Amino acid sequence: MSSFTVRTDLALEDRERIEEGNREIRGVILEEEEKEKTGIHITRVVIETKNGAKIMGKPIGTYITLEAPAMTEQDEGYHREVSLELARQLKNVMPGDGREQSVLVVGLGNRDVTADALGPNVVDHLFVNRHVVMEYGKAAYEKKKMHLVSCIVPGVMAKTGMESAEIVHGVVKETKPDFLIVVDALAARSTRRLNRTIQVTTSGIHPGSGVGNHRSALTKESLGVPVIAIGVPTVVDAATIVGDALERLEKENGVQMILTRDHPQALSELNNMYVTSKDIDATIRLLGFTVSEGINIALEME
Amino acid sequence: MSSFTVRTDLALEDRERIEEGNREIRGVILEEEEKEKTGIHITRVVIETKNGAKIMGKPIGTYITLEAPAMTEQDEGYHREVSLELARQLKNVMPGDGREQSVLVVGLGNRDVTADALGPNVVDHLFVNRHVVMEYGKAAYEKKKMHLVSCIVPGVMAKTGMESAEIVHGVVKETKPDFLIVVDALAARSTRRLNRTIQVTTSGIHPGSGVGNHRSALTKESLGVPVIAIGVPTVVDAATIVGDALERLEKENGVQMILTRDHPQALSELNNMYVTSKDIDATIRLLGFTVSEGINIALEME
Amino acid sequence: MSSFTVRTDLALEDRERIEEGNREIRGVILEEEEKEKTGIHITRVVIETKNGAKIMGKPIGTYITLEAPAMTEQDEGYHREVSLELARQLKNVMPGDGREQSVLVVGLGNRDVTADALGPNVVDHLFVNRHVVMEYGKAAYEKKKMHLVSCIVPGVMAKTGMESAEIVHGVVKETKPDFLIVVDALAARSTRRLNRTIQVTTSGIHPGSGVGNHRSALTKESLGVPVIAIGVPTVVDAATIVGDALERLEKENGVQMILTRDHPQALSELNNMYVTSKDIDATIRLLGFTVSEGINIALEME
Amino acid sequence: MSSFTVRTDLALEDRERIEEGNREIRGVILEEEEKEKTGIHITRVVIETKNGAKIMGKPIGTYITLEAPAMTEQDEGYHREVSLELARQLKNVMPGDGREQSVLVVGLGNRDVTADALGPNVVDHLFVNRHVVMEYGKAAYEKKKMHLVSCIVPGVMAKTGMESAEIVHGVVKETKPDFLIVVDALAARSTRRLNRTIQVTTSGIHPGSGVGNHRSALTKESLGVPVIAIGVPTVVDAATIVGDALERLEKENGVQMILTRDHPQALSELNNMYVTSKDIDATIRLLGFTVSEGINIALEME
Repeated sequence: MSSFTVRTDLALEDRERIEEGNREIRGVILEEEEKEKTGIHITRVVIETKNGAKIMGKPIGTYITLEAPAMTEQDEGYHREVSLELARQLKNVMPGDGREQSVLVVGLGNRDVTADALGPNVVDHLFVNRHVVMEYGKAAYEKKKMHLVSCIVPGVMAKTGMESAEIVHGVVKETKPDFLIVVDALAARSTRRLNRTIQVTTSGIHPGSGVGNHRSALTKESLGVPVIAIGVPTVVDAATIVGDALERLEKENGVQMILTRDHPQALSELNNMYVTSKDIDATIRLLGFTVSEGINIALEME
Repeated sequence: MSSFTVRTDLALEDRERIEEGNREIRGVILEEEEKEKTGIHITRVVIETKNGAKIMGKPIGTYITLEAPAMTEQDEGYHREVSLELARQLKNVMPGDGREQSVLVVGLGNRDVTADALGPNVVDHLFVNRHVVMEYGKAAYEKKKMHLVSCIVPGVMAKTGMESAEIVHGVVKETKPDFLIVVDALAARSTRRLNRTIQVTTSGIHPGSGVGNHRSALTKESLGVPVIAIGVPTVVDAATIVGDALERLEKENGVQMILTRDHPQALSELNNMYVTSKDIDATIRLLGFTVSEGINIALEME
Repeated sequence: MSSFTVRTDLALEDRERIEEGNREIRGVILEEEEKEKTGIHITRVVIETKNGAKIMGKPIGTYITLEAPAMTEQDEGYHREVSLELARQLKNVMPGDGREQSVLVVGLGNRDVTADALGPNVVDHLFVNRHVVMEYGKAAYEKKKMHLVSCIVPGVMAKTGMESAEIVHGVVKETKPDFLIVVDALAARSTRRLNRTIQVTTSGIHPGSGVGNHRSALTKESLGVPVIAIGVPTVVDAATIVGDALERLEKENGVQMILTRDHPQALSELNNMYVTSKDIDATIRLLGFTVSEGINIALEME
Repeated sequence: MSSFTVRTDLALEDRERIEEGNREIRGVILEEEEKEKTGIHITRVVIETKNGAKIMGKPIGTYITLEAPAMTEQDEGYHREVSLELARQLKNVMPGDGREQSVLVVGLGNRDVTADALGPNVVDHLFVNRHVVMEYGKAAYEKKKMHLVSCIVPGVMAKTGMESAEIVHGVVKETKPDFLIVVDALAARSTRRLNRTIQVTTSGIHPGSGVGNHRSALTKESLGVPVIAIGVPTVVDAATIVGDALERLEKENGVQMILTRDHPQALSELNNMYVTSKDIDATIRLLGFTVSEGINIALEME
């Protein structure tokens, strides 16, 4: 029932969709790993070629997914484990080969729309030091080596009259960071992944992605420096949910519901609606802290 | 496909569900009216008998629904019209025959969960005067006749360790109001009704109703004074959405999808998920103000 | 310069004011202690007689003050120490002789006025269990003995039209707790004490106390059960600051500024103004958590 | 008693301080006007020469002050009058001679510190249109002539690791507005002016000004385009209050309190403290709306 526009920001879900029937995809590599101690499942999808990018509907790049089922629970110890794992994965894709870097962290999304507020929430908990180090030196922290960290919440176009990308471009030109980490809330295809999956990718942010559906790119091509994007799916489009439920019914019953394909209006009422968990407000606060700690740990130098 | 538990807090939707096939329901009266100037559609469902209550799955009482399609838009003038219409309907069901009354307004729900925060939001904008009139008399407002207005946000059980109903009972015993107005966010069956429908009922609040699923009743029986409940649907259960979409497909195609009835597990993933509009945060603020103004106008004496 | 109305909610500051000249006060006992490890200074003022109460301008009761200078800093470890010390002091004054008790925690003050929001903030972080234990028993927590904890934020009169005390009375009658813990933001006389002092008293809350200046009492006399009050000074009245600065100047210079006594209008401009620290917003969040943890620890049974 | 560092961001207060003794200041012009209908008092201080700037301790430029005593009250009609007057004054100093302009509005300050949150609050209520006009043209608003409006809240250095000025510079370079309007909370010398005074100046923002004490300039010199600054005093430094009270006492009594000048330590305890009104939270929300409406009206073209 591929006639439904099944929107997902997760490369993992793109691959699942395509792989039905176990076909391998040329130009796309898949590696999986399960952390024994924490039960965190890590998937690496590497899109290597233009062909792979075309089939996947996502740009060339590395897409790492951490699936941590207990991440929706208020267990501090577990969240610490997730932060540590996120830090490990971030360090693997960070440029600079261990040299000191200047990093700009960007919190995309709308602070006033709960499901879209992940980025601003993450930035609220970040450890920033650029202003102190530039004024007093690393001695202020009794450190020999430090990454310089700054951050910004550009806000959304409906409120600022500017693309987030315009603001970020301006700040990048003015402060010249070595690379960017951009955090955003994502849309998934399956409610099973909501709030318990973190995607880290080297391919940046592309038009149409995120809960807020960005119109401009934040990528190495557009900014001149590497862009690592971190995203957590917090919503599923309502139409996707219905489409997926129908699809599952077809599969389970061996019946083909040819009818739906020709009647997309049956789902039109669901436009501009999304599905989210009942405790989304508390969840976003918790996730914001966990992702923020992951970044803080990754950016700390011994 | 009645095997889906189609949950709705709207008597209007119960009646629509049952009326399919145009049967009349004994003990249930339905009146409809369309306001020409504002396009507000008003439906009055009166459940008169125990039989009617049983069929409808709702207690005996009057259920007035205002459907105002443009209510999701930021049009101040239109919202003023909705407030005025709400005030008119409230005055019709308020006890006291125009004599001065002491009114306690209760804002149910969780201030920290956007879709459940309607009640607290309404109470934030209310005009309260009880403390001033008790201390300085009505002269403080240069009035001869005034209703005495007080209000409370009892909070949710997970945060207080008490049922909202326990707190309200205590406050009612202590301050002895003549009647209560209780405001709550509701669950609807159809996304078409989200954020654009206001239900006013004389039957109070019953266990299982509201986004937060209250466990105890707030009714004339339990409190000893009349309870008018005002609700606005802000969410649809995700399982309901899928069930309804399937039902619509059946109807449109004349095919019976007997399969689904036997496979409720197809929807189990949707537990604890709800569907809501993307702009729910802004919408709740707007609705809170509109409902609050409706109450303020209804409680003003000439 | 006693012509200034030097307002303070701290018994400690009353005693300092009176003791100038090292007079002992009959009916008032003072004990002091310095915790070596943490540097927390503990003062116990016991007002034993009516005479003592009259001189002190505070009701008979025990007033324990914890002065923890580093409490304004964001040091988690230190705040843990303060919470532990607060818990120790609370346990000393809690009724019940170690038997299981039912406790209602009341967060006084106005959530929307930063300096007055301590009570609501503390309640936000409390561990409440009454609803769970009443439904599922202590087994739900795998415990044999537990205090039953519930809490409420009554809000302020200007918003509810009711005295906080009316709401609390109602809830106490309905839910019958064994004792109350009431948390409130206080006014101090000296900025040195702001945000770094916690007062615990067995005498409850009295008219005129707190940042919000309560009009009704919450005491054992009025409620029928013991009331422990916890307060942290978050503001100094602006007029007090000026008066105190003048007083200090007099003392330092041996000059008597008789003039001020006769010119109170010099301070009238300061009416309805208060002095507070620049980081009051962050401080209240931090203090709320620290006090909340102190209560949580005190209410935990082994 | 000029030994006190009497800090004020209001040119009006600088002039009052200097003018004691009714001296005229060369290079500084003062004009006053009282609006009959609204009682709004308007003062224009024009600093014309370097000499004037030196004496005043403020850069060359025009400083317009609106004093509106009732501005602290919740009277919608009056606030509308203030917004209209502010709009009138803004139009007088706006560049462009009535031609269409592209305007960037900057909300300085810290959203999480109440007294410093005026700028973010103003920006929240602004009407922005740049993104719509750039995508769909002025036809989207059925207008022939429109100013292009965008806005940004750069946040504070302690949170972003960047000077507000760095962010604004970047955004100005990227989006090339014709001029800027920068909004900020100010410190006054007198509590009489708190929350009821609006200063409009053509000289931009200078280091050391504002509640948050900015370190870098936002001026025509630094940005290349005109900068209009709008400020409302929301705090008085606590040391200033005491100093001013002493000064008033001196004056009233004809006594010289020589002592204070030599004992600045008497005020050292007041470091990092400020005086503000008890209802600062509600006041900031109200002021934010009033200033925002003033800008909205000024930027509307017929």
